[in-house]
Amino acid sequence: MPNRIVAFGEIMMRLQVPGVELLTQSNTLQYSFSGTGVNVAAALSHLGHHSYIVSTLPDNPLGDAAIAHLRKLGLATELIRRDGQYIGMYFLESGFGARPSRVTYTNRQQSSFNTAALNGYDFAAASSKIDAAHFCGITLAMNDTVRAQMVAFAHAVRIAGGKVSFDCNYRPGLWGEGSHAFARTHYESMLELADMVFMNEKDAMLTLGMQTNYAQCREQLLELIPKVALKYSIQTIAGTHRTINKDNTHTLQGYLFKDGRFTFGEPLTFAVHDRIGTGDAFASGIIHGQLKGWVPEETIAFASAASMLAHTITGDTPLSSESDIRKAMATSLGDIER
Amino acid sequence: MPNRIVAFGEIMMRLQVPGVELLTQSNTLQYSFSGTGVNVAAALSHLGHHSYIVSTLPDNPLGDAAIAHLRKLGLATELIRRDGQYIGMYFLESGFGARPSRVTYTNRQQSSFNTAALNGYDFAAASSKIDAAHFCGITLAMNDTVRAQMVAFAHAVRIAGGKVSFDCNYRPGLWGEGSHAFARTHYESMLELADMVFMNEKDAMLTLGMQTNYAQCREQLLELIPKVALKYSIQTIAGTHRTINKDNTHTLQGYLFKDGRFTFGEPLTFAVHDRIGTGDAFASGIIHGQLKGWVPEETIAFASAASMLAHTITGDTPLSSESDIRKAMATSLGDIER
Amino acid sequence: MPNRIVAFGEIMMRLQVPGVELLTQSNTLQYSFSGTGVNVAAALSHLGHHSYIVSTLPDNPLGDAAIAHLRKLGLATELIRRDGQYIGMYFLESGFGARPSRVTYTNRQQSSFNTAALNGYDFAAASSKIDAAHFCGITLAMNDTVRAQMVAFAHAVRIAGGKVSFDCNYRPGLWGEGSHAFARTHYESMLELADMVFMNEKDAMLTLGMQTNYAQCREQLLELIPKVALKYSIQTIAGTHRTINKDNTHTLQGYLFKDGRFTFGEPLTFAVHDRIGTGDAFASGIIHGQLKGWVPEETIAFASAASMLAHTITGDTPLSSESDIRKAMATSLGDIER
Amino acid sequence: MPNRIVAFGEIMMRLQVPGVELLTQSNTLQYSFSGTGVNVAAALSHLGHHSYIVSTLPDNPLGDAAIAHLRKLGLATELIRRDGQYIGMYFLESGFGARPSRVTYTNRQQSSFNTAALNGYDFAAASSKIDAAHFCGITLAMNDTVRAQMVAFAHAVRIAGGKVSFDCNYRPGLWGEGSHAFARTHYESMLELADMVFMNEKDAMLTLGMQTNYAQCREQLLELIPKVALKYSIQTIAGTHRTINKDNTHTLQGYLFKDGRFTFGEPLTFAVHDRIGTGDAFASGIIHGQLKGWVPEETIAFASAASMLAHTITGDTPLSSESDIRKAMATSLGDIER
Amino acid sequence: MPNRIVAFGEIMMRLQVPGVELLTQSNTLQYSFSGTGVNVAAALSHLGHHSYIVSTLPDNPLGDAAIAHLRKLGLATELIRRDGQYIGMYFLESGFGARPSRVTYTNRQQSSFNTAALNGYDFAAASSKIDAAHFCGITLAMNDTVRAQMVAFAHAVRIAGGKVSFDCNYRPGLWGEGSHAFARTHYESMLELADMVFMNEKDAMLTLGMQTNYAQCREQLLELIPKVALKYSIQTIAGTHRTINKDNTHTLQGYLFKDGRFTFGEPLTFAVHDRIGTGDAFASGIIHGQLKGWVPEETIAFASAASMLAHTITGDTPLSSESDIRKAMATSLGDIER
Amino acid sequence: MPNRIVAFGEIMMRLQVPGVELLTQSNTLQYSFSGTGVNVAAALSHLGHHSYIVSTLPDNPLGDAAIAHLRKLGLATELIRRDGQYIGMYFLESGFGARPSRVTYTNRQQSSFNTAALNGYDFAAASSKIDAAHFCGITLAMNDTVRAQMVAFAHAVRIAGGKVSFDCNYRPGLWGEGSHAFARTHYESMLELADMVFMNEKDAMLTLGMQTNYAQCREQLLELIPKVALKYSIQTIAGTHRTINKDNTHTLQGYLFKDGRFTFGEPLTFAVHDRIGTGDAFASGIIHGQLKGWVPEETIAFASAASMLAHTITGDTPLSSESDIRKAMATSLGDIER
Repeated sequence: MPNRIVAFGEIMMRLQVPGVELLTQSNTLQYSFSGTGVNVAAALSHLGHHSYIVSTLPDNPLGDAAIAHLRKLGLATELIRRDGQYIGMYFLESGFGARPSRVTYTNRQQSSFNTAALNGYDFAAASSKIDAAHFCGITLAMNDTVRAQMVAFAHAVRIAGGKVSFDCNYRPGLWGEGSHAFARTHYESMLELADMVFMNEKDAMLTLGMQTNYAQCREQLLELIPKVALKYSIQTIAGTHRTINKDNTHTLQGYLFKDGRFTFGEPLTFAVHDRIGTGDAFASGIIHGQLKGWVPEETIAFASAASMLAHTITGDTPLSSESDIRKAMATSLGDIER
Repeated sequence: MPNRIVAFGEIMMRLQVPGVELLTQSNTLQYSFSGTGVNVAAALSHLGHHSYIVSTLPDNPLGDAAIAHLRKLGLATELIRRDGQYIGMYFLESGFGARPSRVTYTNRQQSSFNTAALNGYDFAAASSKIDAAHFCGITLAMNDTVRAQMVAFAHAVRIAGGKVSFDCNYRPGLWGEGSHAFARTHYESMLELADMVFMNEKDAMLTLGMQTNYAQCREQLLELIPKVALKYSIQTIAGTHRTINKDNTHTLQGYLFKDGRFTFGEPLTFAVHDRIGTGDAFASGIIHGQLKGWVPEETIAFASAASMLAHTITGDTPLSSESDIRKAMATSLGDIER
Repeated sequence: MPNRIVAFGEIMMRLQVPGVELLTQSNTLQYSFSGTGVNVAAALSHLGHHSYIVSTLPDNPLGDAAIAHLRKLGLATELIRRDGQYIGMYFLESGFGARPSRVTYTNRQQSSFNTAALNGYDFAAASSKIDAAHFCGITLAMNDTVRAQMVAFAHAVRIAGGKVSFDCNYRPGLWGEGSHAFARTHYESMLELADMVFMNEKDAMLTLGMQTNYAQCREQLLELIPKVALKYSIQTIAGTHRTINKDNTHTLQGYLFKDGRFTFGEPLTFAVHDRIGTGDAFASGIIHGQLKGWVPEETIAFASAASMLAHTITGDTPLSSESDIRKAMATSLGDIER
Repeated sequence: MPNRIVAFGEIMMRLQVPGVELLTQSNTLQYSFSGTGVNVAAALSHLGHHSYIVSTLPDNPLGDAAIAHLRKLGLATELIRRDGQYIGMYFLESGFGARPSRVTYTNRQQSSFNTAALNGYDFAAASSKIDAAHFCGITLAMNDTVRAQMVAFAHAVRIAGGKVSFDCNYRPGLWGEGSHAFARTHYESMLELADMVFMNEKDAMLTLGMQTNYAQCREQLLELIPKVALKYSIQTIAGTHRTINKDNTHTLQGYLFKDGRFTFGEPLTFAVHDRIGTGDAFASGIIHGQLKGWVPEETIAFASAASMLAHTITGDTPLSSESDIRKAMATSLGDIER
Repeated sequence: MPNRIVAFGEIMMRLQVPGVELLTQSNTLQYSFSGTGVNVAAALSHLGHHSYIVSTLPDNPLGDAAIAHLRKLGLATELIRRDGQYIGMYFLESGFGARPSRVTYTNRQQSSFNTAALNGYDFAAASSKIDAAHFCGITLAMNDTVRAQMVAFAHAVRIAGGKVSFDCNYRPGLWGEGSHAFARTHYESMLELADMVFMNEKDAMLTLGMQTNYAQCREQLLELIPKVALKYSIQTIAGTHRTINKDNTHTLQGYLFKDGRFTFGEPLTFAVHDRIGTGDAFASGIIHGQLKGWVPEETIAFASAASMLAHTITGDTPLSSESDIRKAMATSLGDIER
Repeated sequence: MPNRIVAFGEIMMRLQVPGVELLTQSNTLQYSFSGTGVNVAAALSHLGHHSYIVSTLPDNPLGDAAIAHLRKLGLATELIRRDGQYIGMYFLESGFGARPSRVTYTNRQQSSFNTAALNGYDFAAASSKIDAAHFCGITLAMNDTVRAQMVAFAHAVRIAGGKVSFDCNYRPGLWGEGSHAFARTHYESMLELADMVFMNEKDAMLTLGMQTNYAQCREQLLELIPKVALKYSIQTIAGTHRTINKDNTHTLQGYLFKDGRFTFGEPLTFAVHDRIGTGDAFASGIIHGQLKGWVPEETIAFASAASMLAHTITGDTPLSSESDIRKAMATSLGDIER
């Protein structure tokens, strides 16, 4: 039976230069609509759940286009408010080999989402429609009003009996330099409301200010994650370690900490077509496994394969079905399916 | 001998849905960079002058792309400041027949141009490099700082011995409803500094608050324009009347008021491919004729043909050479040139 | 308050050669998903209603793509069955001037819709969710099973208290030559179930076999439509007369026969970008007016303008909002909206 | 029964800016391969004949591409020599309304065709394979070697019992100013070998130096064409008068002079998509009618409709079938064929 | 001297989503026309032979487009019948890395080829025009009529003195599960008529039901292929082993069994752009070597390089010349040729 | 402080088939304008210098397009003469894996640049505006007039006190077979005028005819380059060794010989997107380092990274800023910058 899931967050317009040309070279852009909330909710929709996004979009042709594109991604859009004037945008110039991809933002602070009135949303009503809600640290970085909305919504979900998941997703560029202490308070508010958290040892150290004597990632993780779970009463914590290899492939290893026990996925190595949104695919896979009641081994293998496949899909938003992901878990290298 | 000309104004990124699709239907945009200042300066560059634009662009890949595209249009870009964070943008959905084109703006008030510091520009230095400067009423609608910069620049040009032209270009949407009185003061500041003004009787009545007992456009024009010239000591005033015909062709008739005498161009009727920027083409034609010292009849015929051709060019910016325009003046209907 | 509306019919994949090239010249196709049911339901969705489509699509990537695209058009897709193997397709080569557009079909009879089991649909359940249902004569031309499903669905809607609309849409190519008599029985089954019918005098004469001594379309219409309404107990009948003019514009005049009274719309003349689906736009406008309880004059003006705008939209499916259509009713010729 | 037809002439690469952009604006070109010989031969292939082109192409990837594209157009390519180094090219910027299309050539004189050795072709062998051969005045303008080849080929065709057609196609730009007298000798060589000639009164006056006292085109034609036929013993002469109308439509009227009698086609007025190659479509229609033994009225109506349709086809080369043309003869304004 | 070669088989329309997008994401398709018969015949045409395809296409714009595109590929199309209503199609979504490519078929059983009348072809006439004929196991999987046509054609070729080649190409998806026994009879009919067969040990075991005690591919091959050759009196058998490597390159090793002796090619490892049709390239290389009378070592090296190059060509159909292939045999890694 | 730099050389139009299709497959080309002079000058413009190109372009739409595109690349175009009739062009079919890229030229000898009058340029005036001038061996291969212009320009630069750099760039295809001796004289003329030369041991051996007993590239380089520097009094010599690896990556190692001392860069290994113009990027990096007075280690590291990045940029012309290159020097493998 499908679950009813909601994500809260900004809907962004992605404007991408085709191929690997620069903005100075091209005269064409491909656009789509995404955001971590959109990505996780749409990924869960493709896994068979009924997914809502709670957000605000302007009541103009750009907002209309966003609605249409989100519906195409499988999202229910009736909880989107139409208000304010602008949609957040980012321009993407895809890198190649030694040249990294480059992202240029428009003014997100002026977006409909980031200027929505504190009491603009009816979180109680939204909470009554869903089984689980997903939040993200990028949203937490926006501004005080948005932070207050986010905490209020998570609170309402808990009260209504729903589950809360939270992806730390700390982006230094959004918080500004030296603002870890400022961010920490807000992260802690969300951790205290969350049933499930996505993070790794770096979040524990940098954002939450925890300390360790270990030097290796793995050892740091093994020490710190149980402490986080304990301190904030979190049932489930999951995350990944990513390595970028010399041949431009990436290697990804996921972990799941649940009931006091770590489960590590097999490290997967694969070619990368579109990097953005692949963390959201991992999160959606973990959430799906939890909702289905799978054992940790199955959940982490599924989430890792979901993330691997998301690297092969154009655009930010994961689009794989459970059947696609199970096939990818079963095979290593694929020829044509016909 | 080419003249050195400068325009002051915002550089906008135009993001156009290809063909006549809507933003909800397409996933592709074509982008270019324009603005009335860009359009007039680039048009004059194609007529053989050395054209500068004074403006501010962000120091990011969008600003770099704007610089590159403006250089391609023939503009000298060394007087563009790199500062601030954003570039103004507008999305264009082209209409067809009974369905009008639709423009959606991003937040222009946050653009590098509209947030530039009051004393950010060295107008004295810029004025020393040029023979003539062009300004536009769209810029005047932005904010107090920009208005102050605009007046300061026009003043500096006059002091340095250059000529000042000003296109009234009153856009109600930018000023807000009921703000004619507020706008008038600012328009008057510019009119007093201008040697040449682009306007018609509607500007005189609505923006300047002049009154007339005539009901016909032509009679209103004949009565009011000489009064404007007298009141603000303007040597030359020019403008157009546009009619949109039932078969989607447009008819355009230009006039030139100079030395107390009206000269009217032949009404031209033509098919329309891209409407935006065609008023700027007319202005550039008049400025060119004035710089060349042509008789009014030649100037108005040239400017009218320049505007007609601009309707046949993709994008906001007129790209016709003097030879192209003279050919269009000579012939009515064209077969292939080979 | 929005109504809940359903349409029944085949979902077709439209594969169009870009521009006006031929299939022998190009190597690219643009695809979308449509069908008269899709078009009417999506048009009503853009007018603010909650619209379902009842149909069958294969459970393969083409079916998935159809679902995604239909969602983007604003349709609720949960009443679509996934069964069978194929989707109906048609290839469109757009004409230009003296060269007509050309449509080539794949084998529709093998499509999921046309091979669905007689009892495959749960029409009672579907009927319980909606206020009105729309059917079309193209569906009636498919095969005996589909015809039986169509009558069963219309019947179920009536029983559940919903309204039934039916667009005659007689296509000789689908029925085959000399099959008017065969078609008539099936048309009569639907007419007897319909509250609202779309047709004109040609349907009355050719499909229903009625006779008239008049030679002019208008006189034939005035004589025959009341007879049809009487014979089959139809409350509302509406339709259009189309003229193709020498300059490639079309002229469209709509009529509405209701409560024994004819109301004729103003004839509208306009340029044509995409002809397909414009009859569906007219039907959706009439249905909308009826649901809103508008007076016939407003309804026919609205439906005519809706159809006119549909000629300016790429693709088969009308996408105009009520606000777009009201603007088109108010103005004749449009300049840029900015 | 199909006839075997050959055309002799240069194969050109056409490089067209998409849409109506200028070469300074775009960064994309669409390419195809054409030439009057290609156009007439391909048009006759689509009318059911077996068509060869005799020409020379370089033995490089551009020559390979030309061969592949010509085969797609329906031409037999085994009589094309592979020799020399270059292919002739022209760049096309499509005009719009008041802005004419613009053609820029590369150096044709260096092309494989124009540098082929005098005795490079085996005209006797080619003549033995065909029933009719078509030549064109553009080829005659190239250089002495090409002119000698052309006369030699026409001579060989006559000896082998085939028919010779010749389209005067005088292009002042290729011959240079003041070279009518020089051109005349070469035109006369071809006229003496031709069974059928395409021309109108302008060719008689300007190229052949004939004089008339009439001022109207029609009267000049009626006087001069019979004189041309008599002087050079030509059985059949045909041609068109073209008018470009204010609304950008063209009007075309064809004539056929045969057995001492003029037959005029109905003037056709139509919208124009691609102007180049439409004279070749007319010529192919006349040749087809002659080969079929049709009466002049049918032939001229068919050729006129063929030319009209060629204006609606992208690219230089007519692609209509006899069935397409007969439909266009029967109807004036077309809706969708489905 | 070129040979005259024919292939028999279905002509398919390939509709490919550009790049690596999914059908749910894109709105554009690129189309081409292929099929194993087309591929082998076109490959041999590019190697200098005169190649025919015997097949059936509908007499509609899709059939016309197929003919034009096949001519461009170098095929003689006069032996193609125009009959029936539909063309077989398949949609291709290209995979990336861990995500495999995906093929979705339309209903091939309804295609013109698969519904052609048993006696629709004049195989005796076709056989009289050619030196060799190629058949494929995909065709054998279609239906009884097609199987009967295939055997009849191969028989006619043998009677006329031509050579018969047959590529086993067993596709489980087309035959259905558990149908090896059913397929075997039909395969045996073709093997008995074939001079040359393409297969490997898997065909011998699965399709022909042969048994082996060996576990390694190579040993199985060495044991079984000579048995096949003996049992069915086949002069030449050839085939490949393919390995997909972790870095997405493929390794291909070919073998040729002739006159009782095995010759193995060097294993080639290479990047893959378009996988489909590369087996046909191998077959065409072997056929070419046999027709040229090359020694087995040269033939297998040539066929392997031909297949390797086919992986670098967009579309199903190999397009390399003998010179291209010889260059690829000589070099391992290529820089620009200029 | 920026330097003023000029390059002398032909401006070529590059016409590239999109993706990896062949000219026989596609119908679209992407065009840009380049040439070694353009590439080096534009690269230096992106590094902050004021860059001119001295060349000749036709006064037609292709010449206009070249000017506009060169301005977009950052070049000052006022020293370009408009004369002659044609622009040199080359067609590029991009290879993939085992299939090399393929370049086909039009007739460069007829280009405006290669037919410019011996005294057409005012080299003294140009020399007075600049600090350094760059020349290339490709230009030297054109014809006697161009060679004389080149030497005259280099001479004028030296007289005016500017620095001369020369890239040997020996292209056997342009000089013809067996013409090393002929080329040597011309190379020596340039070497004698050059302050800085780009070459490696192969140029010393093949073009300059020097001999060595060493077999290894490195040893040959270490022996011969100092001899070249001594013989022709060259202050600085630099160059690269390129290796193409089995996985299609390239490895590049640069060297700089200055003040009698060799400095070698770290070998860099990277994926290749667009190979053309990457040698020009290396040259521009060395020139920049020299102008800035950097130590050899910094210069060679910078130039190597500049060349590596140029392999990741679409088109011939390097577009990286100093900041881009410094980032590439600092990091090995890049994730998204956001």
